[in-house]
Amino acid sequence: VKIAIDAMGGDFAPEEIIKGSVSGAREYGVGVILVGPEEVIRAELVKYDTSGLDIEIEHTDEYLLEGEHPALAMRKKRKASIMVATKLVRDGQAAAAIGVGPTGGVFAAALQALGTLEGMARPVIGGQFLGFTPETIMIDLGGNVDSRPDQLLDFGIIGTVYARKWMGIPNPTIALISNGVEEGKGNEVVREAYELFKKSGLNFTGYVEGNDVAQGKANVVICDGFVGNVVAKFCEGLGSVISQWLENELQNKLSGNEISSLITSLKKAMIPADVTGGGPLWGINGVVCKAHGRSKAPEVASTIGTAKRTVEIDLVGTFKKELAAIKGSINIPDVNT
Amino acid sequence: VKIAIDAMGGDFAPEEIIKGSVSGAREYGVGVILVGPEEVIRAELVKYDTSGLDIEIEHTDEYLLEGEHPALAMRKKRKASIMVATKLVRDGQAAAAIGVGPTGGVFAAALQALGTLEGMARPVIGGQFLGFTPETIMIDLGGNVDSRPDQLLDFGIIGTVYARKWMGIPNPTIALISNGVEEGKGNEVVREAYELFKKSGLNFTGYVEGNDVAQGKANVVICDGFVGNVVAKFCEGLGSVISQWLENELQNKLSGNEISSLITSLKKAMIPADVTGGGPLWGINGVVCKAHGRSKAPEVASTIGTAKRTVEIDLVGTFKKELAAIKGSINIPDVNT
Repeated sequence: VKIAIDAMGGDFAPEEIIKGSVSGAREYGVGVILVGPEEVIRAELVKYDTSGLDIEIEHTDEYLLEGEHPALAMRKKRKASIMVATKLVRDGQAAAAIGVGPTGGVFAAALQALGTLEGMARPVIGGQFLGFTPETIMIDLGGNVDSRPDQLLDFGIIGTVYARKWMGIPNPTIALISNGVEEGKGNEVVREAYELFKKSGLNFTGYVEGNDVAQGKANVVICDGFVGNVVAKFCEGLGSVISQWLENELQNKLSGNEISSLITSLKKAMIPADVTGGGPLWGINGVVCKAHGRSKAPEVASTIGTAKRTVEIDLVGTFKKELAAIKGSINIPDVNT
Repeated sequence: VKIAIDAMGGDFAPEEIIKGSVSGAREYGVGVILVGPEEVIRAELVKYDTSGLDIEIEHTDEYLLEGEHPALAMRKKRKASIMVATKLVRDGQAAAAIGVGPTGGVFAAALQALGTLEGMARPVIGGQFLGFTPETIMIDLGGNVDSRPDQLLDFGIIGTVYARKWMGIPNPTIALISNGVEEGKGNEVVREAYELFKKSGLNFTGYVEGNDVAQGKANVVICDGFVGNVVAKFCEGLGSVISQWLENELQNKLSGNEISSLITSLKKAMIPADVTGGGPLWGINGVVCKAHGRSKAPEVASTIGTAKRTVEIDLVGTFKKELAAIKGSINIPDVNT
């Protein structure tokens, strides 16, 4: 397995990206192609022991800067390092690409170089939602708004495959989020999606409400990206608010160390996937992994592990196969909006 | 001020309702009309000192039971106590009605007997959202799904009036919840509503994201009822989950009393308005207050105080005036869906 890494993206590029790439290459036994200005990369690489490692450099002078409009910047910088890395996947020279930032650039490169899986308009954002509920993922967390019923079904298929192949849940339950479980509840899109899910052969358990999500009542929770984004960010914001409150309440009752360890684990448990932003982009026709912009070497290395596993379990291939099988077996209204 | 109270609704009817009505009548200096079977009410009333109080009984044999389908039950029981109480408002014999439960019955009676304010399809559910952010309300929390842009504007007008007249915030800020604050974010309805709000003369500050809601960034946060309901219930569910986690984490570190007082205040702070269900129904053409089904005498008494204040500050009249003024001043697309 060879993995192409944009050496120039992220808050701590290129130093930490290259350091993490070297250690990731060794830890996971994969080949690495570092993409960026050759001299800059060489100057970093000499700092480490790379003996026995399969590390190449793919030279390009251009790279994106944090704060640039990703699509506009990409138009001017046709050889931006993230684009070059992603094209190595398209051309079969790498099995996966890793981008550390900016997020918009990683998405734009993935879309332009690899495109989406058939029938999907945009990549899907999802992942483990709460630390309290490690077996629950929620999709979509913001990539897709005004989703049609058949898009919600796409999210469901993607989520089920991910839960099964990545999380190791044999027959993941899947539910649609709604404003109540009684007959007649739900908005129009959700009610139509309900019918599609019933016919899909997925392990569909019906509607869940907001409290069920917090309590992990289904493995895969499906929602429009507008709803998912609001809930995920609400959760994140609430994590800060509750942490602040706890800190005040516990002062003089616990030691400073006890308080800060409590708050660290609370915050960690309340930061949903779209905020950490790690892992493979779902819905892209190829393997692209995004690491958080604040990643340092250990996170870069572990993203290499993520990319390797994504390739080895053939996550993207399985997405394709199941999307085709399930959508072929039921009658999806032909919409092209 | 005279207030009609359904003596037969709620988990602790009629005992606690009547007990609370007597104390509420005395505490707030209002007249009370108890609606239900005369003998049952009299048998309760004799238990209390009612000297000097203006307490009447409006007899009816029928009342709704928890678990009955409210609309169907109301068709069979045309003289259900909640309906009779609400009709006293319609006929000018009472200034406000109070129903303790079932919720669906209180809504159905309000809709049938009083109807909604002009241009509003359904009542609106809103109120203080988090104990951590006492100056933030969120609307709608579940009454209206698939809301049109002009309905979101209705919620905004209602919310602004409530924040100003009830909460005493002189010039409340109002914002639309969205999946991002950048240009082009938002779903279709929210983007159209944005334009209406800009023209409305309300103190509109634009989009807020989920984390801003948790952090109280605007006084009035507007959303479709589907979104609001999911967020409110998510918040409630998360309150239970975090409480459970805290209990485990703090065991052997704090005393049992300290832990339970901490958890009680956390839970209280995380139960949004739609769950407590107290207060006036917004959007109804008259004053109807709903108390939580689990209310005992003190809650019933305080709901009498709420009803009295709602009447005295002319909340409903102000809703009407502002809806007409603002919607008259801007061009609302004529929709009748």
